[in-house]
Amino acid sequence: MGKGGMSHGEAKDGEEENMAAWLLGINTLKIQPFKLPSLGPHDVRVRMKAVGICGSDVHYLKTMRCADFIVKEPMVIGHECAGIIEEVGGEVKTLEPGDRVALEPGISCWRCGLCKEGRYNLCPEMKFFATPPVHGSLANQVVHPADLCFKLPDNVSLEEGAMCEPLSVGVHACRRANIGPETNVLVMGAGPIGLVTLLAARAFGAPRIVIVDVDDHRLSVAKELGADEIVKVSTNIQDVAEEVSQIHKAMGAGVDVTFDCAGFNKTMSTALSVTRPGGKVCLVGMGHSEMTVPLTPAAAREVDVIGIFRYKNTWPLCLEFIRSGKIDVKPLITHRFGFSQKEVEEAFETSAHGGNAIKVMFNL
Amino acid sequence: MGKGGMSHGEAKDGEEENMAAWLLGINTLKIQPFKLPSLGPHDVRVRMKAVGICGSDVHYLKTMRCADFIVKEPMVIGHECAGIIEEVGGEVKTLEPGDRVALEPGISCWRCGLCKEGRYNLCPEMKFFATPPVHGSLANQVVHPADLCFKLPDNVSLEEGAMCEPLSVGVHACRRANIGPETNVLVMGAGPIGLVTLLAARAFGAPRIVIVDVDDHRLSVAKELGADEIVKVSTNIQDVAEEVSQIHKAMGAGVDVTFDCAGFNKTMSTALSVTRPGGKVCLVGMGHSEMTVPLTPAAAREVDVIGIFRYKNTWPLCLEFIRSGKIDVKPLITHRFGFSQKEVEEAFETSAHGGNAIKVMFNL
Amino acid sequence: MGKGGMSHGEAKDGEEENMAAWLLGINTLKIQPFKLPSLGPHDVRVRMKAVGICGSDVHYLKTMRCADFIVKEPMVIGHECAGIIEEVGGEVKTLEPGDRVALEPGISCWRCGLCKEGRYNLCPEMKFFATPPVHGSLANQVVHPADLCFKLPDNVSLEEGAMCEPLSVGVHACRRANIGPETNVLVMGAGPIGLVTLLAARAFGAPRIVIVDVDDHRLSVAKELGADEIVKVSTNIQDVAEEVSQIHKAMGAGVDVTFDCAGFNKTMSTALSVTRPGGKVCLVGMGHSEMTVPLTPAAAREVDVIGIFRYKNTWPLCLEFIRSGKIDVKPLITHRFGFSQKEVEEAFETSAHGGNAIKVMFNL
Amino acid sequence: MGKGGMSHGEAKDGEEENMAAWLLGINTLKIQPFKLPSLGPHDVRVRMKAVGICGSDVHYLKTMRCADFIVKEPMVIGHECAGIIEEVGGEVKTLEPGDRVALEPGISCWRCGLCKEGRYNLCPEMKFFATPPVHGSLANQVVHPADLCFKLPDNVSLEEGAMCEPLSVGVHACRRANIGPETNVLVMGAGPIGLVTLLAARAFGAPRIVIVDVDDHRLSVAKELGADEIVKVSTNIQDVAEEVSQIHKAMGAGVDVTFDCAGFNKTMSTALSVTRPGGKVCLVGMGHSEMTVPLTPAAAREVDVIGIFRYKNTWPLCLEFIRSGKIDVKPLITHRFGFSQKEVEEAFETSAHGGNAIKVMFNL
Repeated sequence: MGKGGMSHGEAKDGEEENMAAWLLGINTLKIQPFKLPSLGPHDVRVRMKAVGICGSDVHYLKTMRCADFIVKEPMVIGHECAGIIEEVGGEVKTLEPGDRVALEPGISCWRCGLCKEGRYNLCPEMKFFATPPVHGSLANQVVHPADLCFKLPDNVSLEEGAMCEPLSVGVHACRRANIGPETNVLVMGAGPIGLVTLLAARAFGAPRIVIVDVDDHRLSVAKELGADEIVKVSTNIQDVAEEVSQIHKAMGAGVDVTFDCAGFNKTMSTALSVTRPGGKVCLVGMGHSEMTVPLTPAAAREVDVIGIFRYKNTWPLCLEFIRSGKIDVKPLITHRFGFSQKEVEEAFETSAHGGNAIKVMFNL
Repeated sequence: MGKGGMSHGEAKDGEEENMAAWLLGINTLKIQPFKLPSLGPHDVRVRMKAVGICGSDVHYLKTMRCADFIVKEPMVIGHECAGIIEEVGGEVKTLEPGDRVALEPGISCWRCGLCKEGRYNLCPEMKFFATPPVHGSLANQVVHPADLCFKLPDNVSLEEGAMCEPLSVGVHACRRANIGPETNVLVMGAGPIGLVTLLAARAFGAPRIVIVDVDDHRLSVAKELGADEIVKVSTNIQDVAEEVSQIHKAMGAGVDVTFDCAGFNKTMSTALSVTRPGGKVCLVGMGHSEMTVPLTPAAAREVDVIGIFRYKNTWPLCLEFIRSGKIDVKPLITHRFGFSQKEVEEAFETSAHGGNAIKVMFNL
Repeated sequence: MGKGGMSHGEAKDGEEENMAAWLLGINTLKIQPFKLPSLGPHDVRVRMKAVGICGSDVHYLKTMRCADFIVKEPMVIGHECAGIIEEVGGEVKTLEPGDRVALEPGISCWRCGLCKEGRYNLCPEMKFFATPPVHGSLANQVVHPADLCFKLPDNVSLEEGAMCEPLSVGVHACRRANIGPETNVLVMGAGPIGLVTLLAARAFGAPRIVIVDVDDHRLSVAKELGADEIVKVSTNIQDVAEEVSQIHKAMGAGVDVTFDCAGFNKTMSTALSVTRPGGKVCLVGMGHSEMTVPLTPAAAREVDVIGIFRYKNTWPLCLEFIRSGKIDVKPLITHRFGFSQKEVEEAFETSAHGGNAIKVMFNL
Repeated sequence: MGKGGMSHGEAKDGEEENMAAWLLGINTLKIQPFKLPSLGPHDVRVRMKAVGICGSDVHYLKTMRCADFIVKEPMVIGHECAGIIEEVGGEVKTLEPGDRVALEPGISCWRCGLCKEGRYNLCPEMKFFATPPVHGSLANQVVHPADLCFKLPDNVSLEEGAMCEPLSVGVHACRRANIGPETNVLVMGAGPIGLVTLLAARAFGAPRIVIVDVDDHRLSVAKELGADEIVKVSTNIQDVAEEVSQIHKAMGAGVDVTFDCAGFNKTMSTALSVTRPGGKVCLVGMGHSEMTVPLTPAAAREVDVIGIFRYKNTWPLCLEFIRSGKIDVKPLITHRFGFSQKEVEEAFETSAHGGNAIKVMFNL
């Protein structure tokens, strides 16, 4: 497409109207017209080509909320995305129509202290795709700041571009936990976030990675994706001590960093107990909010608990990991759908309940 | 005293036998002879002059255990101490008889990975005064490595030297939490550890320090020691939300670092809730072992939980803080006792139950 | 000119025109009208009240250049400044007319990698007061982003507000060199930058600070401002070895960090030689560009050389240091002038050649 | 061999005398008897099997000195080594006779501040193989602390074990410069140290590595070892600007970290000029002592200069890199010699002058 001079967003001769997937109520998602905002001098207009479904999208659909965020007005859903530049604002120097880009979904204020000191992911004024009341990106087109659109290397597909978003969570977690070639890593949970964390930890050079889950299929996927050892665990809190010893045996060395990608009392209890003195537990998953865990004995071994919120400055590294082949995200994409009312509904159903689904992707 | 040439430790003509306070059973502490080990080439023999009582000493006396350490054999108690060098080993160049020194109580192995990378406080082979099965220092004399004996500046008393031990906990906590002139600090608990943490945070340059406790007297002591604001709190977990807002008001700014020097479900819940996004909670106290706390919401604001175990390399800094007047530990010493059977018993009773006792000190 | 409903400061019936000090050529500075840019939604308009003269301002006046920056078009000079808000843009929530503010002079792009990772001082798109081709702030009024205008505490004067700019250099240097209560500091050079570095190092808790210079008066000022010891040195490179030993004696301990606030072959040679193994040399001054110095022996003791460019996120800390009394910048202001053609010329002459001038300040 | 009960070091029935290569004067190296010290409780006795020649060994042989170290008494040479445990001291738990080990050559004091804070490589009391007056390890047997002997994984040869020493220099440099998957690396110099730095940077995840040298053969070796691009440079200081632009072109991105493994005015001038704002130059080589370089412009872009002295805690990581195949050191071993008078002389001659020699190795 890329009709550079076209005025943005409006239907031309009625032949092309911008459509988006609107969350209208619990379990109610409708494809409806979506009027684009005007294009600022530093913005670009992007035609969406690949959009993935995240667990939070499903959460919003099922409950109209996620953590403390509540959907009060109809909202366009979706935030894992890549597309092709259609138009660029007057000051944009780095991109041009036709460029294939992956989009970082959050626009921070750059005026608060957290933004200025480099922790923009914690910006209290953040405007983030599909976090109410901000519209998301499951749409034919969106307008977005150019500096949040990252050009894809030639050998990286649009779907892989969309995968930068979930992968960013793993990358940010690995950065905060300072993973490198001396860090033996344990990952609790082999769902989508556990798997991207596994991939990221490997790419950061972790020499040995053990992953645990309650589900055999997930564990087998983790093994195929490169886990050195897998450990099947139960959901019974009584089993922590025994599982700690199984994990130690599987690791064959101290556990330097544990990523709890599940976030339940039991996973966190295991994480705190199994990590070596001076190591770190990185809490990524959010199963339980209030937690009952042996925090004091861990603190007394100087095991620090590191929190994670989204990510920052991760797209260039994700793209480099994918470009270089250090990470292959393609096996995570298990299902694909088109952008029709029927397929959108099916896609969300698949993501919510579809047995072995890892990542469900729209091709627009 | 100070007979430089005397061979170490043994009684001479029966006129001087080395005596120590032995923990023999629950509530049973006896002053009995204590044979000193031989003096190695890098060791010194120190005549003890000031020994403080720590909460852990009281714990051992009342229960014969503390955390995972269990007293199985009679053990000399005490580890907060200072004295005067009586004899030095053949290779000791930095100290000589007559020097007044404060003693760091833990001897690490210097062969394990943790020692070698500078985290010797986590050494699994640590031999630490009065941590079973290692004897403590409430004795007329002890033998100790010279490099763990720090010469007191002229204007620092032996009692102040002994106070370096508890102060080290606060200093180590401030170092791990990276306290400086940009860190607004909240301290939960105004007991001995809360108070040394307050003093240390001030000395590290914290611009504003708020301290909370359930006890009016402790709070008034904290105010005298330099807290900017005090907040009286309850022990009722229902009050967390309201107290969080009281603390915010008292701070008048974001809470960058919270030191939980109590370590209960309620204090930790408050700490996790009140600390600003990107801040740190440092868990110092050990009230509860298993904790029920809102860990996930804190992690989702990237509030990290930092653990503390003892300290490392703190004596030189403690002595500099005391020498320069940046910290005055003298107001913490509320009671003094001599080294007789009767006084030892009274002293421990005072430390355990003595209303407003902060630090109980022996003068030997 | 943006009369938003405003009362104070506007041009009324053409009777008040905004005037500024324009650099028109070598040694040619003229007060002439200066048209303000329009006020953006996140901008404020500030009536300047205090503007200091920096060495770089003098450099531009004398040579029309400074480092790699060349003045090719007439340019308003000045960048150390404070004033009173006259008008605020529509989105500004944190400031209102009448607020007294200190201005951070540099506007970075917030779109490049360096901005996003928190090193905005290195932004290649930086627009900085009086760095060509950007106009400065020696003017009756300027328009500036609100987030770069920091409200003065009640007990901080406008002149002190203007001093945040030079002080920021010292604060940024101390932050990069990680100064704290365990860092013995050497400052090479007792000019304005050496003195603000001394003040900042003290405020960061440095226990012992030695300062060296070739000039007795400057050294006496440094002593009054709180240097522990002063060492008079020569400009003769042959004296390095002897002066190193004098400095060691004056410090009475290892030199942990040296700030070279002069930046000559000799000062840097001394700095590299005198700093302890594992310490840091922070190069702040810029006397020589190409340097002949014993870099290899210093590297072989892991003495790192840390560079400094301007500052970032320093205003809040500077204001806190001044508010709390940890730093008193008032003694640095040695001369004051009004904002007339004649006084502007005199002021720059005083700054350039005025014997014992430290900071020359305009009161507008 | 491993005659566990044999008393260590002495000749038994005259049939086995411990021999070593003694440096007796300039160009004078003699194999002569070497009496072993007694075996302490934490020591092991090791039969040497592989010993490499380092540039510093050659330097000592040619000049009886290296940097500030001067050989005043006859000294056994050699420090890159691996062997087989023959006997262990009474307290050694981690090793037993027959174990194949690589030896870390430096014994630090563990009593000074630098040791205690984890920078033992800077210990002023360091006793290091073949650094006068300490004997080296080119001998049939040596006695060494057990904690400095690292067991070789089954798939790592003794020669590879000896290579851990030079590789450690590259690993320590990469650690200090914080190399990871986001660091584009430039290596100046493709000699032995440049090559191990290249290998280490790759293993730490550097996405792109450019290496420069004046020699075509060295560059071709570097290319084979995995450099992404090679740039041939001159020794003419006039060429810096042009070579900087060649390097930029070869990198195709900013240079985040430059390792100057040559250490001459020209290489360091290039390094300081080519590295991006906020990047690091790590000075590893020691060609020139006094250096004439554009240090100030680099500092003004916050390009820090990081020094390197030997290494610390590198053996476990080196062995993991070799074991896992992330690093292959075998191609660096270009020449092998036996341990006879004649071969020792030939080996050193080869190392000093032997055209394309990289690493010369003794097999004992």
